[in-house]
Amino acid sequence: MSPIRPWSEVAPRLVDVATGRAPADLVIRGGRWVNVHTREVIAATDIAVAEGRFAYVGPDASHAVGGETRIIEADGAYMVPGLCDGHMHVESGMVTVTEFTRAVIPHGTTTMFVDPHEIANVLGLNGVRLMHDEAQAMPVNVFVQMPSCVPSAPGLETAGAVLGPKEVAEAMTWPNIIGLGEVMNFPGVAAGDPKMLAEIAETMRARKTVGGHYASPDLGLMFHGYVAGGPSDDHEGTRLEDAVARARQGMSAMLRLGSAWYDVAAQIKAVTEMGLDPRGFILCTDDSHCGTILNEGHMNRVVRHAIQQGCPPIVAIQMASLNTAAHFGLARELGSIAPGRRADLILTTDLPTLPVDLVIGRGVVLAERGRLLADIPAHRYPDFAQGTVRLARPITARDFDIAAPAGANTVTARVIGVVENQAPTRALQRELVVESGLVAGDPAQDVCQIALVERHRGTGKVVNGFVSGFGYDVPCGVASTVAHDCHHMIVVGTSKEDMALAANRVAEAGGGVAVFSQGRQLALVELAIAGLMSVDRAETVADKAERLVAAMRACGCRLNNAYMQHSLLALAVIPELRISDKGLVDVRTFELTDLFV
Amino acid sequence: MSPIRPWSEVAPRLVDVATGRAPADLVIRGGRWVNVHTREVIAATDIAVAEGRFAYVGPDASHAVGGETRIIEADGAYMVPGLCDGHMHVESGMVTVTEFTRAVIPHGTTTMFVDPHEIANVLGLNGVRLMHDEAQAMPVNVFVQMPSCVPSAPGLETAGAVLGPKEVAEAMTWPNIIGLGEVMNFPGVAAGDPKMLAEIAETMRARKTVGGHYASPDLGLMFHGYVAGGPSDDHEGTRLEDAVARARQGMSAMLRLGSAWYDVAAQIKAVTEMGLDPRGFILCTDDSHCGTILNEGHMNRVVRHAIQQGCPPIVAIQMASLNTAAHFGLARELGSIAPGRRADLILTTDLPTLPVDLVIGRGVVLAERGRLLADIPAHRYPDFAQGTVRLARPITARDFDIAAPAGANTVTARVIGVVENQAPTRALQRELVVESGLVAGDPAQDVCQIALVERHRGTGKVVNGFVSGFGYDVPCGVASTVAHDCHHMIVVGTSKEDMALAANRVAEAGGGVAVFSQGRQLALVELAIAGLMSVDRAETVADKAERLVAAMRACGCRLNNAYMQHSLLALAVIPELRISDKGLVDVRTFELTDLFV
Repeated sequence: MSPIRPWSEVAPRLVDVATGRAPADLVIRGGRWVNVHTREVIAATDIAVAEGRFAYVGPDASHAVGGETRIIEADGAYMVPGLCDGHMHVESGMVTVTEFTRAVIPHGTTTMFVDPHEIANVLGLNGVRLMHDEAQAMPVNVFVQMPSCVPSAPGLETAGAVLGPKEVAEAMTWPNIIGLGEVMNFPGVAAGDPKMLAEIAETMRARKTVGGHYASPDLGLMFHGYVAGGPSDDHEGTRLEDAVARARQGMSAMLRLGSAWYDVAAQIKAVTEMGLDPRGFILCTDDSHCGTILNEGHMNRVVRHAIQQGCPPIVAIQMASLNTAAHFGLARELGSIAPGRRADLILTTDLPTLPVDLVIGRGVVLAERGRLLADIPAHRYPDFAQGTVRLARPITARDFDIAAPAGANTVTARVIGVVENQAPTRALQRELVVESGLVAGDPAQDVCQIALVERHRGTGKVVNGFVSGFGYDVPCGVASTVAHDCHHMIVVGTSKEDMALAANRVAEAGGGVAVFSQGRQLALVELAIAGLMSVDRAETVADKAERLVAAMRACGCRLNNAYMQHSLLALAVIPELRISDKGLVDVRTFELTDLFV
Repeated sequence: MSPIRPWSEVAPRLVDVATGRAPADLVIRGGRWVNVHTREVIAATDIAVAEGRFAYVGPDASHAVGGETRIIEADGAYMVPGLCDGHMHVESGMVTVTEFTRAVIPHGTTTMFVDPHEIANVLGLNGVRLMHDEAQAMPVNVFVQMPSCVPSAPGLETAGAVLGPKEVAEAMTWPNIIGLGEVMNFPGVAAGDPKMLAEIAETMRARKTVGGHYASPDLGLMFHGYVAGGPSDDHEGTRLEDAVARARQGMSAMLRLGSAWYDVAAQIKAVTEMGLDPRGFILCTDDSHCGTILNEGHMNRVVRHAIQQGCPPIVAIQMASLNTAAHFGLARELGSIAPGRRADLILTTDLPTLPVDLVIGRGVVLAERGRLLADIPAHRYPDFAQGTVRLARPITARDFDIAAPAGANTVTARVIGVVENQAPTRALQRELVVESGLVAGDPAQDVCQIALVERHRGTGKVVNGFVSGFGYDVPCGVASTVAHDCHHMIVVGTSKEDMALAANRVAEAGGGVAVFSQGRQLALVELAIAGLMSVDRAETVADKAERLVAAMRACGCRLNNAYMQHSLLALAVIPELRISDKGLVDVRTFELTDLFV
């Protein structure tokens, strides 16, 4: 699939088709035009498409019908612009860009703005380039944001790579880079951190879009400093006042409904109740699990949800089409059904419930009634992207021994406290008993062990600690190389033997997630690409992920999104306590701290 | 005045000011924030400015006040973004960019998108560059659109220069070029004219904005073809359906209120009555006479007028600020009061009537209560721009002799018919008497002579014809080098002697407009720069222009905008009959035609 040719090159043909001097490739007849420019539905509209772009949208396209022109009768169906996801991470689906795309096309997504932040932490700029190139080959529009914060917490962790202003400047010259990925180091921006401001400056100089990520309820001076630094959007707001503050400051407020994020309902009141101009509001998913996009939907799910919150259907559609396109400087390239734009559209018989009957991308019918028709070949990643789990040696149970301070019978340990349905953790303290000089977890207090196994450079380093909240009540070990943001290996468990088995199994697979209990493998999701993404089809990955959830549940875990909670335990930018390859991190102070008080 | 430094360069200071680590240059306290992003008025807002940009907009900027910080108490006044004119020609004011800017700043205009189409027809790319450079030196934002149609009617006229895709490509590399100027050759675009499409392509490749000009009521296939060709806006609509059609097709509908254009009232009903999304609507002036901008206002006049038509004040302001900025890809650079944007704003005590109390551009107080405070030195154009009227020899009355066909006693002549208050002319036919072998005008039928005097290359060519509608009833001659679009010299009159006197007087002045009657000079506006613009201050030019109108009236002319009608008689792109250096042009067929039937 070659990239679509620019409007400037194909304008002669578009003009000829519009005026009847040349036949269209495709004509859609008699639909209801959902016009996101004027916020109208215009009945009895015909569309003519050529070169993958709209050539004519008006009352009668019969002049554009030639012998070879494909004709689709819309029969009064709504013609809606293809849906855009304003910010998301493909890696959250544990599949390749190709598989993600295959999964979401039938739901009507035709444009995605993806930030390959996870692979960047493993493979650096080379990883970004791999996903950039894969994205560019898709039959729909997958734009890439250059990751801005690799590593996320410099000084407190060691990622597989380091990206800075030089790499950002290089990426900005790539054809499919749309801007800078979410600038997560918001305290850094507000503090005037030269590296962050230099990355932003490189992006601005390239006239591209600076993505934001302001993950704090503080709307005081730190927020104002962040805005002044240049990020142009934010998807981390959760409260009505967050969305309002961002919109007022001239940022786009991205409202997020992911597999585990529910941030639309509260914030969309800015439009539905306060009556603010909706142009500054954009819908996105951020993180979708494989099962969600296969079974529940993607942007259609978000739009539908927004409508259920009382948002007028066309306004909700604007938030997933024209608003998004305009935000990224693409309003004349896509995001509406209008001449010159990429011919991306959905046919649907009902706006509020948005059943996706037909999906057209760049003028080609890609899916019909939920079934993908497009032939999108599986994408093979090169070898260097697949052998990324490097351990110095096989892990043994001894690697998880936690020695007590000499002579102690009990210790007060710092324990990472998982909070149900939230990303932040608590910095707990628990009394633990010492046996044979070693400290172990205490199931009665719901404390088990956690270890971070260095896996990028084969240093052999294992950092041990404690975590509470999983509820594991049988001997078990869970290991994962999805371990935001540095993606070492996080191993959690009540049995050092099972932890070692899980760790080694994951390493053997070149990355992934494994659950072992009493020596038996309960679940395995192989993620051979950078330890993050599977080489399998999305359906297979979703099945395995489901078995993974079941396995964690079988071990006693009752958390929603237990696997996500596991994978976030090394995220040393969100308070309060995390684990990294350098030790235990107190994210309230951004300092390393001791395991024992 | 050096160009404002980019946000990317000054972000460190903006962040420091926003967070209180550095003092602001300017703080405005306690105003009502007219927020064009959210369409709200937010009371009790403070603003901090540094480096000519907004650094902080919020409830309390006291942390940004240092010893050197200038403080302005807004006392509850509305803080409105500086107004933007989405499309206009400086030359219509017969003054330099500098003088135009001096005149409009006190009215609150801080951004203009100017198309130096007129000077381009005289001096080509060099002329565009002169105005480009002058524009860039202004203390407010004057962006330049590269003229697209020079000459306007190729083959039917000879301009002072020819511009094409090569020149467009070069201009796109200049720092202050924002896009392509109105693509007036709309039949050409719809016909797939390669030159026009190549100019559009060069502009798109440079990721700049293609201005439109679709001056036809035909909303059929020619219109659709034009849209498919790429122009992204249009200011030639006059009817409600024109604005609606443009907005639906994803163009920006520019609604125009010039000195002699009244196109807002009908079209703004798209918003006020039909309730369309207003984001696609933009206000502009297109052509303002010097007297209008001095005495009546500029964009404040347009916004006020839009409000009088029932448009909510903030929506009207959006149409002259954020909508305009977004259209040109500048939404993060200007057009709103938000961090990072150029600190352009107005203080006003009332939104509907919009009295402009204080004007700030790039953080500097430029005007107060209608008085310009900024020191904007007069701009001197180089010599090559001032000696542009080249006649082969002095004009004599004999140059205006119109020989009758041999032996004829009467002739049927084609006569250009001026239509009151409209740009199109009528192709009339009149019986005229032959005396001594010559045909002359006939005051009884309101027919007088018109001549087009070639003035770019000193060819000595004079094309003679007849015009009806001015009502001149005394011996007189009126000559002008403002003669759209080629800007030769148009001479109209009832006395060949006065016509010759006027022509020679204008030539002596290096260009301008002169009215003679019975050997006496009644009025003269010297336009030494390219024969289009005066070296004088705007006030002087306005006085002289007023005397010009009075002089034409004294000769019997009762037309509104008589001078404009005069200057449009060579505009060989608007039907029906025009005069050019090649002869009489029938603009219904785009062919040269004979003077006698």
